[in-house]
Amino acid sequence: MNTVGILGGGQLARMMALAGASLGLRFLVMDTARDACAGQFAPMVVGDYVDPAALAEFASRIDVATFDFENVPAQSAQWLVDRIPVFPNPRALGTAQDRLAEKTLFRELGIPVPDFAVADTREQLDEAIARVGMPCILKTRRLGYDGKGQFRLRTPADADAAWDALGGQAAKVGLILEGFVGFQRELSVVAVRGRDGEFRTWPLTENWHVDGVLSASLAPASADKELAERAFAYARKLADALDYVGVFALELFCRDGELLANELAPRVHNSGHWTIEGAETSQFENHLRAVLGLPLGDTRMLGHACMLNWIGQMPDPTPVLTEASGHWHDYGKTARDGRKVGHATLRADSAVELAEALARVGSRLQREAQVAPVIERLAE
Amino acid sequence: MNTVGILGGGQLARMMALAGASLGLRFLVMDTARDACAGQFAPMVVGDYVDPAALAEFASRIDVATFDFENVPAQSAQWLVDRIPVFPNPRALGTAQDRLAEKTLFRELGIPVPDFAVADTREQLDEAIARVGMPCILKTRRLGYDGKGQFRLRTPADADAAWDALGGQAAKVGLILEGFVGFQRELSVVAVRGRDGEFRTWPLTENWHVDGVLSASLAPASADKELAERAFAYARKLADALDYVGVFALELFCRDGELLANELAPRVHNSGHWTIEGAETSQFENHLRAVLGLPLGDTRMLGHACMLNWIGQMPDPTPVLTEASGHWHDYGKTARDGRKVGHATLRADSAVELAEALARVGSRLQREAQVAPVIERLAE
Ligand SMILES: Nc1ncnc2c1ncn2[C@@H]1O[C@H](COP(=O)(O)OP(=O)(O)O)[C@@H](O)[C@H]1O
Ligand SMILES: Nc1ncnc2c1ncn2[C@@H]1O[C@H](COP(=O)(O)OP(=O)(O)O)[C@@H](O)[C@H]1O
Ligand SMILES: [Mg+2]
Ligand SMILES: [Mg+2]
Repeated sequence: MNTVGILGGGQLARMMALAGASLGLRFLVMDTARDACAGQFAPMVVGDYVDPAALAEFASRIDVATFDFENVPAQSAQWLVDRIPVFPNPRALGTAQDRLAEKTLFRELGIPVPDFAVADTREQLDEAIARVGMPCILKTRRLGYDGKGQFRLRTPADADAAWDALGGQAAKVGLILEGFVGFQRELSVVAVRGRDGEFRTWPLTENWHVDGVLSASLAPASADKELAERAFAYARKLADALDYVGVFALELFCRDGELLANELAPRVHNSGHWTIEGAETSQFENHLRAVLGLPLGDTRMLGHACMLNWIGQMPDPTPVLTEASGHWHDYGKTARDGRKVGHATLRADSAVELAEALARVGSRLQREAQVAPVIERLAE
Repeated sequence: MNTVGILGGGQLARMMALAGASLGLRFLVMDTARDACAGQFAPMVVGDYVDPAALAEFASRIDVATFDFENVPAQSAQWLVDRIPVFPNPRALGTAQDRLAEKTLFRELGIPVPDFAVADTREQLDEAIARVGMPCILKTRRLGYDGKGQFRLRTPADADAAWDALGGQAAKVGLILEGFVGFQRELSVVAVRGRDGEFRTWPLTENWHVDGVLSASLAPASADKELAERAFAYARKLADALDYVGVFALELFCRDGELLANELAPRVHNSGHWTIEGAETSQFENHLRAVLGLPLGDTRMLGHACMLNWIGQMPDPTPVLTEASGHWHDYGKTARDGRKVGHATLRADSAVELAEALARVGSRLQREAQVAPVIERLAE
C-alpha cells in the first residue's frame, strides 16, 4: 500500500506529497486544473470530481485516498469508499462541509458555539435575526472559504442588504446566521487522530485573519494550561465522534476566557504550516502516517514559530532567507489577487528573538501591518 | 531562473528536489535509468550523459545545472557550461573525480594527506610500495565509490594479489597507492560556499563505515574547538581554491589529533543527511541556495543527531517511527544487495537521550552492531 491519491492539487496536496516522499510513498493528485501546483511534484489525473471516468482512473491507480480540498462532493467520496480506503471518512467530510451540521454536532457534543439559526428564506432570515440578535453574520452553509460567502450585519436594517448579497445562493448552498463574536483572539487546534484512535495535538496556535483570510499564525499561543486543555478536549471529542482519521483543525474564538467553536477543517490546515519547521513532525507527515495506519509522530515544538501568509503574489524572498530561522515556501503558483501563493515561517528559541526577527522582516518587506499584531502578542 | 537540472537521479537528486520545492523551484533530472528514484518526484530526461541529443534536450529545459552524481564525464559538464550556468564548476568536479589530482591539490594547499603514489603499472606499484610502506591500500583513481575499486595490502607479498584485483583497470581509470591510516576516527566537514564566496559549515560529523560503505554518522562529532576549526579551515581553503559553489564534503581521517584528508565529494553527501531534521537549513536546501545565488541558510544544529544508513533493503519502519525524534527516509528504490535504499535520523536534545533512542532502535531492529560504535562514542 504505497500510492496515496489526493483529491485536490493545491498547496496542501503539494506539501503532503513533499512530506510523504520520505515515507517511501508515491502520490497521484486529482484536480480540475491542469496546472494545479501539486502537479509539479506528483503525477496528476485532470478531471472533475464527479466525472466517473476520471474518478475511476484515479481509483485504479491508488491504494488509499485523502483530500486537499474539503468540498469534494459527498457522492464522489462515497463512490471511492466503495472501492478503496478513504480517510477521513465521508461522514466527517460531509459534516465539515455544512456549517449547520457542523455547529449542530458541536452543540450536541457540549462544545460551545456562537448562536446560530438557519436562514434559507427571507422570512427565516428575519426569524434568525430575532433569535440570534445583533451584530451577526450571514454565511453560506456550504462551499464558503477564505471569508467568501459571508455578510456582516450590524443592525436589523442590514437584513435587506444581506439577503441581496447571499439570498440568491440560499437554494443551492443554504444559509446560516451566526452571532458575531467580539472575540479577543482566534485560536486553532491542529490535531491528528490515527486509525486506532490515537490522538495528538500540536501546541495551540493563535491566528490573525485579514478580510476573512488567514494572515499570520503564532505557536504556541499564549494560553494558560486549562484553556489549552479545554480546546484539546473539544478537538478530541469531535474526532472521536466522527471516527476521524488524519489531521484536522478546529477553529475557535476566544472571548473573555470562553472558547466558542467556529468551524472544523477536515484536512491539513493553513494554521498548521508552521509545523514543517517548528515541530518534530509536521502536520503533513502525520496526516499521512494516520491515513496509512503508521505510528503517529511526535508533535512537540521547538521554541516559537510564526507563519506569515503570502496572498496575491510572492514578496522578495531575501529578508526571510537572510534570517537565521527564516524558511520560505513558494507554492509555484502564478500570481492572482487574493490567491494563497506561499508562506514563510520564522522560528526562534525565545519569544523575544522571534519578535525581533518579525520586526526586521516586516520592515524590510514593508509589511509592518501584517507582523504588528504578532509582535504585540509576543510582547505581552 | 527557476528550473534546476540535476545530472544523476538517485536519492541525492530526490532529496534535493524535495527540498527545493519550497523555494519555488522546478526540477529536471537526467539519468541513464528510467526508474531512477528522483523521477518519482521530478520530470526526467532518460539518456546517457555523453549522448548529445539527450544532453541538448536536458539543457534546453533548464536554467541552471548541478549534480547528484560526481562521475559525469568532464566533457559533458563542459558542454553544459558553454550553454548554461553549472555549479559546481567542471574544474572542481574534475579534481574530485581523480584521487591523484585531489590529493595533489590537498598537498599543495597544505592540507595533510596520507602518503600516496601513482601505481599505473606493475613496476610503479612496486616503487609505490617502497615509497609508501606497509600497510597500504591500492585504489582506482577514478570511478570508485562506496569502497569499490580498493584493495588493502598488509605485506609486500600482497602486491601480486592487489595487481590481480585492480591491474586490469589501470589503463582505463588509473591506480593510486595510499598509506593505510590507522585512524581512531573518520570525520567529515559538510560545507557550502555561495556564488559570492560566502562559506558555511555544518557541525563536524563523525562517520562509521562498514566494508567501505557509510553505516552511521553522528553530529556534532565530539572534537575540541581547535580540531574542528582546523578541519573547517581545510574545507574553506579547498573551496576557495576551486572557486567551489554549492555543498561538498571533505572526508578526513583523525589519527592522534592529526587530520589527514581522504577525499572531496563535490556534492551533497551521505554524511550530511542528518541536516534535514538536525539543522536549521539542510544541506539540500543550502546547495540549491548556493547554486541559485540566494542567501545561504543557517547551518546551526539543534541537539544531537545520528543517521543510520539502510543498505540492501529497508528494515521495518516501526521502531524508528515510534521514537519521538525518529525520522524515516525511504528512497523509493527496489531492494538490491549493497544498494543505499534509505536512512533514518534520530535527533535528541542530549547525548544521553540520543544514545538511549539508538539502543532501543538497534535492539528492536536487531542491528546492535550498527548502533554500537555510536552509542560508545556518546558515552565518552
Ligand atoms: N461568528 C463570527 N464572529 C466573529 N468573527 C467571525 C465569525 N465568523 C467568521 N468570522 C471571521 O471571519 C473569518 C472567516 O470565517 P470562517 O467562518 O472561518 O470561514 P472560512 O471557511 O472562510 O474560513 C474567521 O476566521 C473570523 O475571523
Ligand atoms: N588510506 C586509507 N586508510 C585507512 N582507511 C581507508 C583509507 N582509504 C579508504 N579507507 C576506508 O575506506 C573507506 C572508503 O574509502 P574512500 O577512499 O573514501 O572511497 P569511496 O570513494 O568509496 O568513499 C573510507 O571511508 C575508510 O573507511
Ligand atoms: Mg475559517
Ligand atoms: Mg569516501
